[in-house]
Amino acid sequence: MSVLFKNARILATVNGSFKVLDGAFLGVSGKKINYIGTNRPSFPYDSEKDMHDRLLMPGLVNGHAHSAMNLLKGIGSDLPLQDWLNTIWPVEGRMREQELVSGMEMVVLEMLAGGTTSFSDMYLKPMVTQKVIGESGIKADLCRVVMGGDENTDYLTFQNRVEALEFHKEFYNAYDGRLHVDWSVHAEYTIADRIAEKWAEEIQTLGGRLHIHLSETRTEHENCINKRGITPAGWFNKLGFFNVPTYAAHCVWVSDEDMAIMKDKGVTAVHNPSSNMKLGSGFAPVQKMLDRGINVALGTDGSASNNNVNMFEEIHLASVIHNGYHTDPTIMKPADVIKMATVNGAMAQGRPDTGSLEVGKCADIIAINLDAPHMVPDHDTLALIAYSAQASDVCMTMVDGKILYENVNFLTMDRERIFHDYKKSCEFLSKS
Amino acid sequence: MSVLFKNARILATVNGSFKVLDGAFLGVSGKKINYIGTNRPSFPYDSEKDMHDRLLMPGLVNGHAHSAMNLLKGIGSDLPLQDWLNTIWPVEGRMREQELVSGMEMVVLEMLAGGTTSFSDMYLKPMVTQKVIGESGIKADLCRVVMGGDENTDYLTFQNRVEALEFHKEFYNAYDGRLHVDWSVHAEYTIADRIAEKWAEEIQTLGGRLHIHLSETRTEHENCINKRGITPAGWFNKLGFFNVPTYAAHCVWVSDEDMAIMKDKGVTAVHNPSSNMKLGSGFAPVQKMLDRGINVALGTDGSASNNNVNMFEEIHLASVIHNGYHTDPTIMKPADVIKMATVNGAMAQGRPDTGSLEVGKCADIIAINLDAPHMVPDHDTLALIAYSAQASDVCMTMVDGKILYENVNFLTMDRERIFHDYKKSCEFLSKS
Repeated sequence: MSVLFKNARILATVNGSFKVLDGAFLGVSGKKINYIGTNRPSFPYDSEKDMHDRLLMPGLVNGHAHSAMNLLKGIGSDLPLQDWLNTIWPVEGRMREQELVSGMEMVVLEMLAGGTTSFSDMYLKPMVTQKVIGESGIKADLCRVVMGGDENTDYLTFQNRVEALEFHKEFYNAYDGRLHVDWSVHAEYTIADRIAEKWAEEIQTLGGRLHIHLSETRTEHENCINKRGITPAGWFNKLGFFNVPTYAAHCVWVSDEDMAIMKDKGVTAVHNPSSNMKLGSGFAPVQKMLDRGINVALGTDGSASNNNVNMFEEIHLASVIHNGYHTDPTIMKPADVIKMATVNGAMAQGRPDTGSLEVGKCADIIAINLDAPHMVPDHDTLALIAYSAQASDVCMTMVDGKILYENVNFLTMDRERIFHDYKKSCEFLSKS
Repeated sequence: MSVLFKNARILATVNGSFKVLDGAFLGVSGKKINYIGTNRPSFPYDSEKDMHDRLLMPGLVNGHAHSAMNLLKGIGSDLPLQDWLNTIWPVEGRMREQELVSGMEMVVLEMLAGGTTSFSDMYLKPMVTQKVIGESGIKADLCRVVMGGDENTDYLTFQNRVEALEFHKEFYNAYDGRLHVDWSVHAEYTIADRIAEKWAEEIQTLGGRLHIHLSETRTEHENCINKRGITPAGWFNKLGFFNVPTYAAHCVWVSDEDMAIMKDKGVTAVHNPSSNMKLGSGFAPVQKMLDRGINVALGTDGSASNNNVNMFEEIHLASVIHNGYHTDPTIMKPADVIKMATVNGAMAQGRPDTGSLEVGKCADIIAINLDAPHMVPDHDTLALIAYSAQASDVCMTMVDGKILYENVNFLTMDRERIFHDYKKSCEFLSKS
């Protein structure tokens, strides 16, 4: 199967930089982009799609989510962090497998409709929820969250570890590589030290990638220093975790020394502006990390603290809030933020074959409707994406050359059945 | 003409507080709401509209905009403030009457599609652009921006003043009161002192309301103190401007003493979070102003510094950025922010008959589609509006009992003709 998009505005990447083409062609053959240019390609395609008034850009990569927390959205809003956690945990504890699947399905519907083609998720029972990745056609890095334990826990039978290893064994690189199985440590403050030590040793021998939370709040960062005499990043590094390619959510309170470690070890910071703002966590030093050459990706965090999985909202926030915080309109350029939301996230996921529109890359492509009052005029396409565009402007989402969403229709997912199941899950959680 | 909305979720106001009704009825007769309740009203309506999976809420009031600056969107992005102004001013200077009208038309299209039912605009030639208010059916407070002058300017023939007075005389309360004509002072740093003194004296005798910029940047605030020994708010107050009901955009750097003046004089602060963030102006002390009982409204500012007129984006930003800045998730409650975006804006405009859903108020109502992945579950309707909803969820916009926008269709405005004219205006500005 091959398709030629024509008459498009295209946000292509040439030698690592964005280049906007007008009235251009983009060809897809199988899973890959095989042509980009302003002249019609000389080779044939099975079909053509007119993309007049449409912008083709790389699909968005959501670098940090907790899928099924969607079901908890709006519970305990505006409480202090610990009160909020105490409010949602009992509800979370009642989730059965069908709730986890329903939550994942609804989040994937929302992601596809909003232009996300790949996401990294940290949550419970990925062995069950992974089927949504298989069915929907989206790409994802899932992990079984690893946390807890105490001095008496038997490491070898520790359930978090056992489930993580089983999931890895059965699903690593499943669905033609659309699914990646990552390792995780929830955070330094939620895992027993001796479990962490053994876990760090074990995953270094297994390959794969590591998904963690890092220095999200000032309290957790300072408590770690007070307790261990070392920062969270220093602790992770000392234990050897950063010898595994790592992406770390939040990084709000990382120190200059932490950033030096991250740069040295190739740790990706995943910026989560909505969540950091809503929960009052603070402003991650994003421009500083970018200036130091640290790979910075972008994520939504879970819907319970966002409250959606709208990557265009994150692009907008990341583009403007740091200007306000540093009273400097010249930082956080649209090009840098759009890279955070695309190719940098793909790098964090170990997917060098996607995240930008280039010949030979995966056809993970979204189309943005430019024919809307808020999308005119287009004096600067990158600024238009960063400051004006909305998730609802996405009119097509393609992954590996397959269209999964187009003009409000889901082509691989049964929206009606998913809403039906989701409502039943919501009723179950409310009643029990 | 009367219409009964049924099966709706309704964000009603009872004794000044929000109350969410489910499966409820809202009746509109002529321009007014004449029924709200969970039981079917006993009196008849000409027609009924089923609002299953729809939330009815008050239309949004955009408290501060510069309509036609839409045409400049994306020019000089990410430059320092003065460089940006130097970049856009020459283009702005080339705008003819048709550009001003086109810009206003496009902004009103965007506003209606995004649930704004009334806005306050400060720009050039409202005598020309006012016709868009007449034709579209939206409500607006327009003013002829007053700025400039020098020691040699003859006050009586000063063009800004003459145009402002003419506009007021011809259009005050036009279009059945949908159009208000306000007075303006662009800002303390852009007007000659002797013009300002006479203008303050004159408008106190004329009635009406005053729209100003106040302490947007630290530089302008401190320069005023250095130059005059008084803050901008102190200066406006000393000259008597605040004896006219005033709404002041930005208020980022107002002092405690300034807030005391604002409270005392009933000055409304219009918060513009997107613009304050994007331009690096800083964080207005919004929670402090609310705590002191100052009326705080919400606005987009012009599209050139936003870059859209999306009030749901402002609601989201106002709800989260102050939590981040003060590392406190308990401030800026959804109910307060939604009031800022509705009834507080209506108060700023001197429209006590709108801004909330209550019997006897104007039928300025919007419907939000709840049947979308990002809008489920609804554990807390106010949180859903503040944190999850998008402008694109608006599926109906009604002003004074007349539907102006419904399911992507504009019922009073010719979208095709407006886009055609707008593109011609963009071409003219690019070429000249």
